[in-house]
Parts: sequence; structure tokens; C-alpha cells
Amino acid sequence: MTIYFEDIEEGARRELGSYSFTAGEIKRFAEKFDPQPFHLDEEAARNSHFGGLAASGWHTASVFMKLQSRMIGELAPDVRKSGPSPGYRNLRWLKPVLAGDTLAYSTEVVSKRELASRPEWGIVFSHITAVNQRGELVFEFEGSVLFARRGAPSA
Amino acid sequence: MTIYFEDIEEGARRELGSYSFTAGEIKRFAEKFDPQPFHLDEEAARNSHFGGLAASGWHTASVFMKLQSRMIGELAPDVRKSGPSPGYRNLRWLKPVLAGDTLAYSTEVVSKRELASRPEWGIVFSHITAVNQRGELVFEFEGSVLFARRGAPSA
Repeated sequence: MTIYFEDIEEGARRELGSYSFTAGEIKRFAEKFDPQPFHLDEEAARNSHFGGLAASGWHTASVFMKLQSRMIGELAPDVRKSGPSPGYRNLRWLKPVLAGDTLAYSTEVVSKRELASRPEWGIVFSHITAVNQRGELVFEFEGSVLFARRGAPSA
Repeated sequence: MTIYFEDIEEGARRELGSYSFTAGEIKRFAEKFDPQPFHLDEEAARNSHFGGLAASGWHTASVFMKLQSRMIGELAPDVRKSGPSPGYRNLRWLKPVLAGDTLAYSTEVVSKRELASRPEWGIVFSHITAVNQRGELVFEFEGSVLFARRGAPSA
């Protein structure tokens, strides 16, 4: 089964799944990509504005992609039919993600349109959110992804 | 030496350094956070819209943070004086980053303002860019970071 641009409905919402941020995972990501003390060390983190060991915001974002790519693998396994994203807008880190927090990610289709310049593709805009175990919105952004149009030649 | 909000000048530009995306690094990031075939396998990638093994866009973004955090460590080692980012805008992946590419990242201060709601902090807006070894702009976004104001009580 392959999902094409025409199959995507505005308003469609999908739960992407949950992810628990352990202290070990937070530190491993931070060592590689964001080695600031409040992402690496519990004691330094307690004395920081976060008040506890906090995940890098880029870790929170990368976990979205982890869950999203699992969905893509299920829905659009033909890599020529979906995938490229030109970018996104208005990413917000609203609350800290601390060690032990579990985030539930979801995505909702906001709008879609055909591309005049590239008739074999359409673009889909989605609102991505992550909510913690207390129901607080901690992370959101407006994403965009290209999808192949049905019957169009392969890109 | 600690950098405060008052020390930051609009228009100031800083080179953050370069990073070479090896096939191994691209695959290691993808295995963990973006396991799509064009980020994992050369053969699948050649047959994809990227035409070759391509770094996850979130890898490109995380490497920005790697280079930025190195600069923060040098300029603002007191973790209570800088760090939190409320989010950013208009992130664009303009061209694929392929195995073997080297990106040079830089940041330029666009504007800054005090925060009426939180007088101990100011917010600094920057334009972040990454250019490949052919001089092509491949990645950009508009970032924001909070900085402590000089003489303000610690947050």
C-alpha cells in the first residue's frame, strides 16, 4: 500500500506514538550534539533554569522524526513517493522535557496543495504536537512534506 | 568571561565551524532517529529523489547545535546566563546534504529586545545558515535564544 497526495485528507489526525526520555538517552544525545551542562549532568541541571536534567530541544525534535519515519515506513514504503520536506515553520519548545518524562506525539493535516512548478508532487502541511504525561503541550511545529501525485511519473 | 544580553550587537556575524558528513555518521544518526532508506543505504538512496546517501534534515540541524554549543561553552560558560530557546522559525532544507559533503555553519544577529514579562532576560534573534563545499546554501533558519541581562538577578 502506498499513500499518494490525493489520499491525504485535511483534518486527518494521527497519533505517532509515545517516547520516554531516560537520563541515559538524554545524555547520549547531548554528548554528541548539544553538550551543555543542563543536558549532561544532573547536578548542573538542578542549578540551571531547567531545574533538572533536560533533553536537548533537538532531541525532542529528532524523536518526532523517529516516530514519523516509522509511520512513513508503514504507509509509504516506496521511497520515491514521499519523504522530502522543504522545511517547516514556527517550532516551539514550550516546556522543558525532563528525564523520566514521556511524550505523546501526534500530527494533524492542516492543508495541502498541488505544486505548479513540479506537477508530479503535492505539498502537505501538518501541525505536529507533543504532550507530556501531565497533558501539557511541550513542543509543536508546522511541518511540510512532499507527496507524489497519483499517476504522476516517478520523480 | 560571560556574555550578557547587553554585549550582543545586531549585525554581528560568527562562523561556527565546519562539519563533514561521512556515510557512517549519516547512517548512525538515521538508524536512531530517521530510518528511511535514503538515509541508510547507498543503493536505495541512488534510486531515491536524493540521488545518493543523504543526511537526515534533523541531523543537519543537530550538527548546528553541536557547533553552537561549542561556542556557548566558550562565551557563556555560566549556564544560568544563556541557553533556553523558545523555538525558531522558517527552517529550510534547500538542498540535499550527501555523504562526503562539508557544511560551514554561521550565525548572524538579526535583532534583539528586552522581555517585558521577564525583566531578567532578553531575547536575541539570529539567522543561521549552512553552506556546502560548493558555496551552495543548503540549510537556514531563524533562531531565538534568551540571554541574561547584566546585573539582573539569576533566573
